[in-house]
Amino acid sequence: MILGDFEAEELSEAQGARLAALGVATRADILKMTTLASSGHPGGSMSSIDFELVLWGFANCDPKNPFAEGRDRVVISHGHTSPAAYAALAHLGWFDPSLPLLGFRRGGSPFEGHVERDVPGIDWGTGNLGQGLSAAVGFALAARIKGDGAKVFCAMGDGEQQKGQLAEARRYAVKFGLTNLVALLDWNHVQLSGTNDEILKQDIVADWKADGWAVIEIDGHDVRAVYRAVRAALRAAVPTLVACHTVMSKGVPFMEKDGYKWHGAALSPEKCKEALAILGAPDDLDRWTLERKKSAPDWHAALPRRPVETVVLPSSGTPRTYTTEKTSDNRGAFGAALEDLGAVSGGVPMAVLDCDLLKSTKTDLFAAKFPKSFFQGGIAEHHTAVLAGALSVAGIAAWWGEFGMFGVAEAYNQQRLNDVNASNVKLAVTHTGIDVGEDGKTHHSIDYFGTLNSTFGWKVFTPGDPNQTDRITRWMATHRGNHALVMGRSKFPVALKEDGTPFFAGDYAFDPAKADHLRDGSGVSLVCAGNMLPYAMDAWNALAKEGTRVDLVSVAAWSDLSDADLAHIARHGRVVTVEDHNPKTGLGTWIQARLNDLGLPARVKKLGVTFYSSSGPAKELYALMGLDGPAIAAAVRRALASKSGTERSA
Amino acid sequence: MILGDFEAEELSEAQGARLAALGVATRADILKMTTLASSGHPGGSMSSIDFELVLWGFANCDPKNPFAEGRDRVVISHGHTSPAAYAALAHLGWFDPSLPLLGFRRGGSPFEGHVERDVPGIDWGTGNLGQGLSAAVGFALAARIKGDGAKVFCAMGDGEQQKGQLAEARRYAVKFGLTNLVALLDWNHVQLSGTNDEILKQDIVADWKADGWAVIEIDGHDVRAVYRAVRAALRAAVPTLVACHTVMSKGVPFMEKDGYKWHGAALSPEKCKEALAILGAPDDLDRWTLERKKSAPDWHAALPRRPVETVVLPSSGTPRTYTTEKTSDNRGAFGAALEDLGAVSGGVPMAVLDCDLLKSTKTDLFAAKFPKSFFQGGIAEHHTAVLAGALSVAGIAAWWGEFGMFGVAEAYNQQRLNDVNASNVKLAVTHTGIDVGEDGKTHHSIDYFGTLNSTFGWKVFTPGDPNQTDRITRWMATHRGNHALVMGRSKFPVALKEDGTPFFAGDYAFDPAKADHLRDGSGVSLVCAGNMLPYAMDAWNALAKEGTRVDLVSVAAWSDLSDADLAHIARHGRVVTVEDHNPKTGLGTWIQARLNDLGLPARVKKLGVTFYSSSGPAKELYALMGLDGPAIAAAVRRALASKSGTERSA
Repeated sequence: MILGDFEAEELSEAQGARLAALGVATRADILKMTTLASSGHPGGSMSSIDFELVLWGFANCDPKNPFAEGRDRVVISHGHTSPAAYAALAHLGWFDPSLPLLGFRRGGSPFEGHVERDVPGIDWGTGNLGQGLSAAVGFALAARIKGDGAKVFCAMGDGEQQKGQLAEARRYAVKFGLTNLVALLDWNHVQLSGTNDEILKQDIVADWKADGWAVIEIDGHDVRAVYRAVRAALRAAVPTLVACHTVMSKGVPFMEKDGYKWHGAALSPEKCKEALAILGAPDDLDRWTLERKKSAPDWHAALPRRPVETVVLPSSGTPRTYTTEKTSDNRGAFGAALEDLGAVSGGVPMAVLDCDLLKSTKTDLFAAKFPKSFFQGGIAEHHTAVLAGALSVAGIAAWWGEFGMFGVAEAYNQQRLNDVNASNVKLAVTHTGIDVGEDGKTHHSIDYFGTLNSTFGWKVFTPGDPNQTDRITRWMATHRGNHALVMGRSKFPVALKEDGTPFFAGDYAFDPAKADHLRDGSGVSLVCAGNMLPYAMDAWNALAKEGTRVDLVSVAAWSDLSDADLAHIARHGRVVTVEDHNPKTGLGTWIQARLNDLGLPARVKKLGVTFYSSSGPAKELYALMGLDGPAIAAAVRRALASKSGTERSA
Repeated sequence: MILGDFEAEELSEAQGARLAALGVATRADILKMTTLASSGHPGGSMSSIDFELVLWGFANCDPKNPFAEGRDRVVISHGHTSPAAYAALAHLGWFDPSLPLLGFRRGGSPFEGHVERDVPGIDWGTGNLGQGLSAAVGFALAARIKGDGAKVFCAMGDGEQQKGQLAEARRYAVKFGLTNLVALLDWNHVQLSGTNDEILKQDIVADWKADGWAVIEIDGHDVRAVYRAVRAALRAAVPTLVACHTVMSKGVPFMEKDGYKWHGAALSPEKCKEALAILGAPDDLDRWTLERKKSAPDWHAALPRRPVETVVLPSSGTPRTYTTEKTSDNRGAFGAALEDLGAVSGGVPMAVLDCDLLKSTKTDLFAAKFPKSFFQGGIAEHHTAVLAGALSVAGIAAWWGEFGMFGVAEAYNQQRLNDVNASNVKLAVTHTGIDVGEDGKTHHSIDYFGTLNSTFGWKVFTPGDPNQTDRITRWMATHRGNHALVMGRSKFPVALKEDGTPFFAGDYAFDPAKADHLRDGSGVSLVCAGNMLPYAMDAWNALAKEGTRVDLVSVAAWSDLSDADLAHIARHGRVVTVEDHNPKTGLGTWIQARLNDLGLPARVKKLGVTFYSSSGPAKELYALMGLDGPAIAAAVRRALASKSGTERSA
């Protein structure tokens, strides 16, 4: 509402004149930013700038209160047009226009090559093409859930229309009637290496219409037409695409005629000065060149700091306890805990997302009780991952129940982008490991840690039984961050203390920094995780019958394994790890690395999934893979034998 | 051509009668397989079986010569309908019908829950929905490249139409005019949790038409209509979808009326017998129940063995040598080597794939010289990854030039499925690491090893300079397997011996099992990889000036690091690793794990990318990340100091 809102039928003369002046000032900054950084994307920034000025100028958001609840949001899906976003925001009062000139593509600055959330006005960092619409759908859905009346605008490039994820996002928006969402296409008909038609011919309008959207085509440099179209879109009965026909590098004829040349290349200083003259903008390039040679400003002091916008539940409810009489599978315990959480959410809005697996992941229990907080999106995991991330940063407690292979491996890059955006996704994946059994190798999710551990924020939790599943689910609900709860498919025995009572019950409280010491012994530490605990316990019991008592440790929070636990694990000098994961990038390797970090000399024998397994009952597959009780016990015996061998030779 | 070909205008009476009989026999087997395994997907198998019988019955392929060059291929994209595929193939003579009854979903058997390539007739294993059409496009394109006249059929489910990747594959097929490809939709209107309309309403026909396909709608249980439609599709001017309206669980009324109930659940033995009676099929369920209790047959002896179908080039050409006078970047050296390979391919068909990045990845050099072997597919990485895999198993030397983030992280699950399918993809990714610099954190590919090392086949190569890039590119061309060549963006100095001559030149031959010992010294082993070699060399030179000579080892083939090299690296007891990768899942952790495996007691200090970096010139970012020459030298000094500390205290 800096220039107005979308209530009046037409732009006023004064608003039109203001936008024209801003068009010049921002184009000058776009050119200067990219020339100063000797890199970046001026072409698409100059084709997008006119409609982006209308969006930020008339959206319901306020530079003086940039993180206001219920604000409208503008998602820049073609993140490489960041100079346009920075220039528009700066000249509309969000921050000093000097900042992006000083900071664009400079190490340590938030004015990155692709937009990111440390810049006020930018609510979702992008750069991977084709994902922005999913984030916008998430913000639009969040507004609907909260009933705050917020509108969402998504600016997109034409090249990225080639990404399939857009179709997933389009259909989702239509299913949920998100008419508070308007998508805008920067249709300059040119992408990195040529025209759209040369690269991949596509009927963009037909694609959008096929998925149920309305399409309004306009001249994207006519701000009056943009205003009218966006206003109409906000009043339409279905989500609407405003397809803005634009010209790459619009405003500087010698750039315009070069087609795709200036998509991703900066003008030389001389050419930049020439362009500034053509625009009728002052030439202060040399001044900024000098300024950039000085030490950088304190970026974060110069910009308002984003408050915490993610949410946790006020209560985790009352844990359920499963006993040997009342057995379950981990996913069932998750489903029951999630249902409980719905009842104690205390007004914190929840969204449970599903891709046509609710009965398998057990989110059907929640869905039945809280149908308004359950969102069925069909088989569309790339979209759903981003949706979950955007919902979470918009203040929704977002859970996604999914199979491991599709929630992690298939959507890995989306989960990484969520992490870059400091999201708060609660990902509950079932059917992981070869415990999935009969579904076979395409479904054997044995890389959830290798992938997610390649990010900096995701935590991976593998509960050791239904009771621990219940506790971890509740912990996730009340702690911020991206958390993956990793479960198998099989029925799962309750882990017991030696006295026969449930281990993960009563006073037990989940703490990611504490591994679970189920049995104490000597000689070897047998370390297992998740699906493998019952099999490791089988091995332990068999060994105990032979009079051999070793340590048995279960690790639920792989990422958080503490120094103290590592010292405990290393205490006998011999470790056997057992995981339903590829040990090359799993728990065993992680423990080996951490032991080395700490200078703890224990040797580790790693058992895990070491080839693409066939399809069959889980117990059969564990036996074939050398991961059942007898195989684990044999590995422990070998470790004990090798140890005495070493000790003899020492 | 088991029942005929697609030449006659109509099915004959005899052919129709044969198909009707096969429809009963295969349905009986579908029900028996799933009941015997107590799991699986009978519903979609029974809705797909009639048109699949037409496909396998009339396609140009021969059970007696199942791997014949130029054969037609049938891709089952909805891989969970494997019982239909196994039953159809068995009853058309590909193998004994007893085998899938004995082996379905049984550990060690190739008759998996989702189709896979150890079963003759199955040329592409699937299970991850929405990817089969991309594989079919790959086979169709391979046939065009080879000019062998092969046709390709792709059977798909309706639920998977919700996946965005299909849109990418559709547009690609239209761009390249793949009218030898016919897609068939099992449109039973039901998916796992409900009807398509309940889960996610979609106008499937409009989606296909928008992307330029023709659509023929028919009754998918009328084999005459299926035959006519497929025949017409093979004669159409554009790729054609045959949308087969079908009924889930078709043939058994008590199952049909249950809607989605039998999508993924097996009948009880009693109900199975009831269904067999309804079908008019003999009830021999008890016999197979007993047979399955016996020990399993030797599956692989019972089935013909797939020959090697992937290809390598007959020659790697003459290496190029870059000198300090003639510097380059690694991607430039890759591009030049690829261009050279085009000239020595000796009739082996090549395909170089691009997603609108050819000038950045330097495949433009190849494209200019060999335009017929260059395929521009637009920004569609999920599709392109599968396309590359399918091309490779169809005997094409397939290369894909891509940015690291999009070729690995974005397409990780597709690359994993390629690996499951034993493909031979040559993935050349540039712009990896924070060396990408200004493009920022969304583009900083620092997880290529953590992800690909979570598979069992992919090898990751990080060349240390343009000369090594040249050698590795040529090695990849002449060796089978999935290989990722990982390069940065920056100009890259030529690595030199101490005598000033190029290290990776002359007699140097790339061998994945040999790390490169650039400098010998004492005290510490400084181990680097790829983008970091110039910075590690800076550090080494600075230390040498101080009179400190340490070992300097560059590791190009992370996955293949040999025991001998590890012993060498460990020989001083102190190791500093430097990588343009997240060290949690990268080279440092891998070395720590391997040292532990071997019982080598060296301590490792890991330098790497430890947070999401900002955007800026690579040199700035390396300095901020503690990865430039001075930071590396400081780490080596600390390692040396800690060592003497230890030695003193020892």
